[in-house]
Amino acid sequence: MLQNIRVVLVNTSHPGNIGAAARAMKNMGLNELVLVDPQDFPSPEASARASGADDILAAAQVVGTLEEALVGCALVMGTSARERHIPWPLLNPRECAEQAVEQVARGARVALVFGREYAGLTNEELQRCRYHVHIPADPAFSSLNLAAAVQVLTYEARMAWLAAQDLPTHLEKTEGKAEEVEEVTADELELFYVHLESTLIEIGFLDPERPRFLMSRLRRLYGRSGVSRQEMNILRGILTETQAVARGLPHKRRSK
Amino acid sequence: MLQNIRVVLVNTSHPGNIGAAARAMKNMGLNELVLVDPQDFPSPEASARASGADDILAAAQVVGTLEEALVGCALVMGTSARERHIPWPLLNPRECAEQAVEQVARGARVALVFGREYAGLTNEELQRCRYHVHIPADPAFSSLNLAAAVQVLTYEARMAWLAAQDLPTHLEKTEGKAEEVEEVTADELELFYVHLESTLIEIGFLDPERPRFLMSRLRRLYGRSGVSRQEMNILRGILTETQAVARGLPHKRRSK
Repeated sequence: MLQNIRVVLVNTSHPGNIGAAARAMKNMGLNELVLVDPQDFPSPEASARASGADDILAAAQVVGTLEEALVGCALVMGTSARERHIPWPLLNPRECAEQAVEQVARGARVALVFGREYAGLTNEELQRCRYHVHIPADPAFSSLNLAAAVQVLTYEARMAWLAAQDLPTHLEKTEGKAEEVEEVTADELELFYVHLESTLIEIGFLDPERPRFLMSRLRRLYGRSGVSRQEMNILRGILTETQAVARGLPHKRRSK
Repeated sequence: MLQNIRVVLVNTSHPGNIGAAARAMKNMGLNELVLVDPQDFPSPEASARASGADDILAAAQVVGTLEEALVGCALVMGTSARERHIPWPLLNPRECAEQAVEQVARGARVALVFGREYAGLTNEELQRCRYHVHIPADPAFSSLNLAAAVQVLTYEARMAWLAAQDLPTHLEKTEGKAEEVEEVTADELELFYVHLESTLIEIGFLDPERPRFLMSRLRRLYGRSGVSRQEMNILRGILTETQAVARGLPHKRRSK
């Protein structure tokens, strides 16, 4: 589905940027690259910066005009670094991604158009776009590297796609680790606090006549940590060993 | 405010990536770059790729260890491309940005840590981070260019910061509690771990010959808890008292 989002680079000067853009696309699960009148392509520099996304470079379509690059696309969005003479519907990258994913979910094709390194897209080119997309950079230093701009828009497209699929945006946990992160229950936590308090009294850190807020503060710390069963075993083990030391029992070296 | 988010690049091979990362940072309104043992810096290639972000390169701090790079940071988040042996609290870039902006709104400093181009961060380095951040790339081609990863995280930081500016009441809520919830910095947390480890050895709970994953698990527990300065004083006090007991020194009853 993300494959139906096409990246169009217009009149790119530096082949390294084409390679880096291909890598960003492949990282994010896109694969359709169209180059409008690139100044230097194919090029070893493009391949070097693609770092394994050579398949995308090899399949890239090279065309002479933006018009050709947009054939078949229902929705065209073009990046723009500055406000134009004729105000246009303007999206941020997140809104752009939502629009794109909505369209490809319907089976449509979408083009994301990126301009020249120094001059961007011309007014004429921008007027072929339904929306302009602006990456909200610092106004004092607003020109992103071309591949960096491709990275931001394709990243947002992937985030929107994962959300639409109801897929996690997190690295998937491997199965079977559920036990390790299982949190202790409230009653187990209470038993720990009893053990902790008596240990602190035994080592002389807590004066039961003047407890102040010590246990409250420790409760707040451990209470918000979501202690796992394994961690609880470690903490209880430390307390048991501390008590043994306080009672003058022989050490037994062990580790968990 | 975004200036309090520090970008830390660990042992970077290619100076071009350092320059491109500086450009991405400046585009997004960040300016504090710390380089841990870079392989080739300063370098003309870094300056070329910085494309005007030379001020960030010129001000970049070069240090020998990750520990030095994290001094003063209350929240450290490290990028990770794959699942680790010990699962760690994992955020996507958007969640990472929310955490970062929340912290800097309180006046805290935050570090975003990026690993080596080919090998990423080591397990030891990752264990200095409270959260791991994973950019949800295509699992079939998941390794982003270093500067592209910096672009994604700093872009999200800027988006979160812009959103936060629209919600001044949300930010105001955290004001005023600053002192009470002031979190310890990464270096203070490291000193605690050193103290904890030596204490566990003294009481015979940790066998330095067979440490297994004990310290890693404790790092994960305390690392995710956002320990306040007051809590840290309590924890350090407990350790000091435990050591006194282990060394057979007289108890002195006290409480905090």
